[in-house]
Amino acid sequence: MITATSNSQIKNITQLMTKSKVRREQKAYIIEGIRMFLEVPKELLIKAYICENSLAQSDDRIKGRLKYVEYDVVSEKVFKSISGTVTPQGILAIVKMKEYSFEELIGTSDENALFMILEDIQDPGNLGTIMRSAEATGVKALIMSKGTVDIYNPKVIRSTMGTIYRVPFIYVDNILEMTENMKQKGINIVAAHLKGDKWYDEISYKCKTAFIIGNEGNGISDELSDKADILMKIPMEGKVESLNASVAASVLMYEAYRQRRK
Amino acid sequence: MITATSNSQIKNITQLMTKSKVRREQKAYIIEGIRMFLEVPKELLIKAYICENSLAQSDDRIKGRLKYVEYDVVSEKVFKSISGTVTPQGILAIVKMKEYSFEELIGTSDENALFMILEDIQDPGNLGTIMRSAEATGVKALIMSKGTVDIYNPKVIRSTMGTIYRVPFIYVDNILEMTENMKQKGINIVAAHLKGDKWYDEISYKCKTAFIIGNEGNGISDELSDKADILMKIPMEGKVESLNASVAASVLMYEAYRQRRK
Repeated sequence: MITATSNSQIKNITQLMTKSKVRREQKAYIIEGIRMFLEVPKELLIKAYICENSLAQSDDRIKGRLKYVEYDVVSEKVFKSISGTVTPQGILAIVKMKEYSFEELIGTSDENALFMILEDIQDPGNLGTIMRSAEATGVKALIMSKGTVDIYNPKVIRSTMGTIYRVPFIYVDNILEMTENMKQKGINIVAAHLKGDKWYDEISYKCKTAFIIGNEGNGISDELSDKADILMKIPMEGKVESLNASVAASVLMYEAYRQRRK
Repeated sequence: MITATSNSQIKNITQLMTKSKVRREQKAYIIEGIRMFLEVPKELLIKAYICENSLAQSDDRIKGRLKYVEYDVVSEKVFKSISGTVTPQGILAIVKMKEYSFEELIGTSDENALFMILEDIQDPGNLGTIMRSAEATGVKALIMSKGTVDIYNPKVIRSTMGTIYRVPFIYVDNILEMTENMKQKGINIVAAHLKGDKWYDEISYKCKTAFIIGNEGNGISDELSDKADILMKIPMEGKVESLNASVAASVLMYEAYRQRRK
């Protein structure tokens, strides 16, 4: 049992939780909680850590899985000190990052493929929520600008509710080039914009489509919205100037999904 | 100028920010930031506090408003110590709660009136985001169970983006009784539920409608979903078990709004 916070594994977990640089170097990240542990694909699991006296240990599904993976037991005190949650569920794990290539993400033969282009989304909860809605609406991939919050940040991980294992994503250095590239591949680039002259629900998304979602404070940059094939608007009553970014993204994804289901 | 954190006004601001009991007793709450200050209706503003050396002071709109309201200047050190944000915008204010009566909220003659019933929503960001979408889609009022997070919590206030001044809302002791009451008044009660046999977008909302949104972890209680006239489902691909509560609420509000705009 690990009983000291000075233990090198514990130190490494803390580093992986707090530093995106360390995560990139090790190509690994930390997940926490029973659900996140049960859903992690076997081949991505590096090592699990379980609290000596915890909920997790009384869970049969957890016990079943622990038979097949490497794990260490950690004292309650040490576990509490590293956990990122207020009421820890007693289990966390180091998970290998899954890497996707651009070709694999974009080069789909599905004529209805749906993509999300995210430009500098900053709020961890927003990114996680967008990913959750993306899986729910059958989105093929998230394409994220370099300035987008780190998806392996524990707060994002938590709010993805396990979808991080299943929705493909990629960070790109140059989101303009990438968007141009997608356009060349026949993907219809659509952005919500003040200059849009149609409502979002007057447009057909029954074709390869990518929605652009901009930063929470500043919206979509001019350079990126210039790349769009279609500018449209989400109607809003009252004095509301914009919707929450994850809500705007989800309303658009659900409209595309609605059209595809008809 | 106020230069000590021991000043009684400063102490009161801190209490109003952190304690819902104190807010209820004084029937007042704290708002922060330039935008929130500019949008607060004059008759609700009790007193403003401005940082001695701040962004806010260089803003002409703020200066214009300060001519007509009572305010004190606060030293930078004291202001930082009370501000709830990482980068304070240099202005906060005490605002009077606006009180709505049940009759005023529900007794509308609008045959298309839309309401949201929120049961025990816990996340401040979710509640603020729901309110923001509610104004955007013309919702008449939010009806909240006693167990819902306090809407005057500074985190909720912030995420409402000013809609708290404009969207009517009420907390009720007994959400079951209230829902029954709304039903008696001819409002169609609709809930997303596993037992639902129709998709959310196959139902007409062109009538007085109230959507029920349940708690993030537990969903809608059985007692409350039993009150619904219609149970329906939001379709979801993949392994997603549920959407984020504010996303589910917004997708429903936008569907009702879409039907109303046709």
